[in-house]
Amino acid sequence: MLHPSSELPAADLLPVVRQRPVPQALIETLQARFGARCSTAQAVREQHGSDESAFTVPPPAAVVFAQSSAEVAEVVDLCSQHEVPLIPYGAGSSLEGHLLAVQGGISLDLSRMDQVLSIDAEDLTVTVQPGITRKRLNDELKSTGLFFPIDPGADASIGGMCATRASGTNAVRYGTMRENVLALEVVTADGKIIRTGTRARKSSAGYDLTRLMVGSEGTLGVITEITLRLYPLPEAVSAAVCSFPSIEAAVRTVIQIIQLGVPIARVELIDANTVRMVNAHSKLGLREEPMLLMEFHGSPAGVKEQAETVQEIAAEFGGQAFEWASTPEERTRLWTARHNAYFAAIQSRPGCRVISTDTCVPISRLADCLLDSVAEVDASGLPYFLVGHVGDGNFHFGYLIDPDSAEERTRAEALNHQLVRRALQLDGTCSGEHGVGLHKMGFLVEEAGAGAVELMRTVKRALDPKNILNPGKIFEL
Amino acid sequence: MLHPSSELPAADLLPVVRQRPVPQALIETLQARFGARCSTAQAVREQHGSDESAFTVPPPAAVVFAQSSAEVAEVVDLCSQHEVPLIPYGAGSSLEGHLLAVQGGISLDLSRMDQVLSIDAEDLTVTVQPGITRKRLNDELKSTGLFFPIDPGADASIGGMCATRASGTNAVRYGTMRENVLALEVVTADGKIIRTGTRARKSSAGYDLTRLMVGSEGTLGVITEITLRLYPLPEAVSAAVCSFPSIEAAVRTVIQIIQLGVPIARVELIDANTVRMVNAHSKLGLREEPMLLMEFHGSPAGVKEQAETVQEIAAEFGGQAFEWASTPEERTRLWTARHNAYFAAIQSRPGCRVISTDTCVPISRLADCLLDSVAEVDASGLPYFLVGHVGDGNFHFGYLIDPDSAEERTRAEALNHQLVRRALQLDGTCSGEHGVGLHKMGFLVEEAGAGAVELMRTVKRALDPKNILNPGKIFEL
Repeated sequence: MLHPSSELPAADLLPVVRQRPVPQALIETLQARFGARCSTAQAVREQHGSDESAFTVPPPAAVVFAQSSAEVAEVVDLCSQHEVPLIPYGAGSSLEGHLLAVQGGISLDLSRMDQVLSIDAEDLTVTVQPGITRKRLNDELKSTGLFFPIDPGADASIGGMCATRASGTNAVRYGTMRENVLALEVVTADGKIIRTGTRARKSSAGYDLTRLMVGSEGTLGVITEITLRLYPLPEAVSAAVCSFPSIEAAVRTVIQIIQLGVPIARVELIDANTVRMVNAHSKLGLREEPMLLMEFHGSPAGVKEQAETVQEIAAEFGGQAFEWASTPEERTRLWTARHNAYFAAIQSRPGCRVISTDTCVPISRLADCLLDSVAEVDASGLPYFLVGHVGDGNFHFGYLIDPDSAEERTRAEALNHQLVRRALQLDGTCSGEHGVGLHKMGFLVEEAGAGAVELMRTVKRALDPKNILNPGKIFEL
Repeated sequence: MLHPSSELPAADLLPVVRQRPVPQALIETLQARFGARCSTAQAVREQHGSDESAFTVPPPAAVVFAQSSAEVAEVVDLCSQHEVPLIPYGAGSSLEGHLLAVQGGISLDLSRMDQVLSIDAEDLTVTVQPGITRKRLNDELKSTGLFFPIDPGADASIGGMCATRASGTNAVRYGTMRENVLALEVVTADGKIIRTGTRARKSSAGYDLTRLMVGSEGTLGVITEITLRLYPLPEAVSAAVCSFPSIEAAVRTVIQIIQLGVPIARVELIDANTVRMVNAHSKLGLREEPMLLMEFHGSPAGVKEQAETVQEIAAEFGGQAFEWASTPEERTRLWTARHNAYFAAIQSRPGCRVISTDTCVPISRLADCLLDSVAEVDASGLPYFLVGHVGDGNFHFGYLIDPDSAEERTRAEALNHQLVRRALQLDGTCSGEHGVGLHKMGFLVEEAGAGAVELMRTVKRALDPKNILNPGKIFEL
């Protein structure tokens, strides 16, 4: 039985703010060293003290714009000497409060460290600085015939994507940041620069420090260089869409696709309610039913075969209005509903704010999880949209709340809490791709258990004994 | 410039043995608790005190055969109380000395914890106990249409494969244990049972404790339960072989295959010297040239297309005698050379012992690495074979030494040392898939740097403050 919303702990709604002192001597040293690249201007601090989450927290005391790994090491060393918190900052697109200065301190902006350091096309690897965004990285790769597939939607920085273990629509085929980071350079809490991993595709040489850093949300080290796996741009790409009589029919189609080994590159679900919003927004006449939007990568014959196989499977589960296309224009047209879902939703309630959920469950549990949760949101009366990276079992409700209504905010958080509880009961996770940050700290304990979280704390205490690296995130120490 | 063999530190050749006391009270407690499942018989201890490595070390004081996670926790707790080393034991197929009791202590045999706990076919996951071997796991999966692809050659236990981050011939398509373990149950050094990960395919919820444990070689916890990703058995499988005028031509063919996005499932190289051994052993008339052996998984049309694409690429690089086949019998025939390479090699020098190398480099560096190393081994006069998981840049020289000749052993270790140095200079790793164990401890420092190894030590000290879990492996504390 799920807890009713009245039992929700207030801690899930408000971050614990416990400002630690930032000595003026540190600010002065940073200003002397970095000049205009150390800013205490209110606007700059406020920009760096907020993110896409719904929390409001006082901004950091200063923002330093680093230009090299050595500079990062210097700043970390100074913060260590003064025991002052330091929060790495990339593109500011975090959704879970990762960037907020809940214990005060310094924001370390890495966006100027945005260079591609080397492209090794034969090895399908690239080494970059953390501040480069994924779109610019792919622009720089254009002439190579290769691409970096991880696409979380936002034009996040690669460093931030490492820090949150990001993924997105392509993960069903290409994996997440977990699978696609080969090596890192990291500044540790004592200001030392270390390297983890090599450019070899695999290794059994010692502890997997790369994967320990990926997803650690800036709490174990500052990532200053990243080597990524690349993939050849597919020779052919095709897209398909199909409508289904129920969410369950759509999910069963996806299970069958994956069990048959169809190497589908993307498979996204949007629910009938969201299709309705898209129809209203974009003046389309799509069937107002759950819809799958798919993409196939391969040879021309291969993508045709994939689409044909999928069409047959979809028909078995009552799929209707199957369309597929291989020209770029037609593919874009087919995917209109997915591309426009977010904007259609927010325009359906002008001035609203989106609270996004991020649970992920084993795919066999997905239909159950979605059906119960959709019923719950419908009963709540809150407007919402629903999109899912359904091949991975990851989906996002976007609750559309009035930003001035504490009641709606509470209602949305209560729905999210019930959803997370349900996902955990179904062997799932509270965060498929957004990370824990401030928002999921309570859920992490429910998910992983006190013993596993205590082990995480033990690692944190050992690697950052002064608790200066993005403190107060993931778990309380 | 590579160091000449005369500069080799002796530490690479002999493990540091520093026996810690095993109180009689502990042995008596274990015997009282486990009866016949706690053995101090010389033969049992010796069997558990040796592995496939070339080291000789005194055996553990006792062997306990555990039957449940709770029993593992009990044994760890007792060892913790007495500060006695504990070495998890699976199938005994380690190659790098992982199982040797260099600090004395207790061997904890997990081979009786060999059950499949649940198969979730729709989710493509299975949960097993650590003692099950990969072949038996695949037998148990037969009726599901799914398989677990990681194939290190030996019929290793799944727990051991986790511990060493194993991979093998299928890794180019399916990844390694790093990518294919979803969740673990682990007994930590204080005897507590924790869980890491969930059955969801991806997660951003906190530190990646699963990947911290995978590859930690029993030094951070005892793995007692494992959830793995499975894959659909391919609808069609085809195989191909091709001979090349040079190793470089073969490697360039593989680079091109991968750059074109051909989803090749296996691609193995054997060198001309090894083909010669196979011809002599199996009375074949294969061209005595470097040879690629390949396997393709997909739809019938897909595997045909893959083989055709590969044949075209191979022809560009001077490939000869290209053959492909899709019936099981013909596929087996084509792969004879690879299947027989090991036995053909050891029978070429009756009574010999194999010392296997395990470097892995970015594929663009592979030809250089191999050519220089082949020249070096040829010059040394030691007989050898060479097989490579060439799609990953991982390869193994097997030096065929006289087990009674210290001089040959030293010569082989010197060659290995030079090979590792070369691989590291080429951005590679000292261990592609066998792990560090005792054998690569010196190399790990060269590869990762003192700072990264110190970070590993910090993690170890924090998670196992009494240094009881497989101590003396990976690094000296």
